[in-house]
Amino acid sequence: MLTSILLTAGFALMGAGIGAGIVAIGAGLGIGRIGGQAMEGIARQPEAAGKIQTAMLIIAALIEVVSLFAVVVCLLIALGEYTF
Amino acid sequence: MLTSILLTAGFALMGAGIGAGIVAIGAGLGIGRIGGQAMEGIARQPEAAGKIQTAMLIIAALIEVVSLFAVVVCLLIALGEYTF
Amino acid sequence: MLTSILLTAGFALMGAGIGAGIVAIGAGLGIGRIGGQAMEGIARQPEAAGKIQTAMLIIAALIEVVSLFAVVVCLLIALGEYTF
Repeated sequence: MLTSILLTAGFALMGAGIGAGIVAIGAGLGIGRIGGQAMEGIARQPEAAGKIQTAMLIIAALIEVVSLFAVVVCLLIALGEYTF
Repeated sequence: MLTSILLTAGFALMGAGIGAGIVAIGAGLGIGRIGGQAMEGIARQPEAAGKIQTAMLIIAALIEVVSLFAVVVCLLIALGEYTF
Repeated sequence: MLTSILLTAGFALMGAGIGAGIVAIGAGLGIGRIGGQAMEGIARQPEAAGKIQTAMLIIAALIEVVSLFAVVVCLLIALGEYTF
């Protein structure tokens, strides 16, 4: 029986670990694209740097919220297993 | 029997973790593309920054709603397991 | 038999979590592309911003409806398990 408890914990923790990794891919793709285009935009029009930076932070925050929420879900799974 | 309960919890938690990660990929791809093009647009026409930013936030909010909803589903699965 | 019910619940919850994540990918790809091109369009012709924004919202709402419906299906699977 203890075998199964541990097997269970294994699957759950595996999911939490892989999930946290996939979250980082998502945040990286999203914020990376926003940041990359923002860099290009500021380089093309340095006088618009303020506007671009404001918009960049607003939109990146939206991805940040979803990503942090998702990582917290993975963290809850990871920590919850210890209370079995 | 307890064996199965726990094995069950393992698969469910694995799905919740991986699911939360995939949600972040979706939000990253979607909001990232919107934000990236918006940065480019503001750089090209800084005087249209207000209009672009407004439209950017409206459309990004649609993805945010679906993503947060989906993460909450994963959170419910992750937390619900504790009541087995 | 109870064993199978519970093992079933595990797979069901796993599918609900992963499914919710895939829904977010779909919404992100679709609404992201619409929003990205809209940003580019507004930047190219700022005086057409109103028309672009209206069309953008109409078409994005179609993806939003399908996505929310699909997330609700995942939510029902996640919540339904408690009534076993």
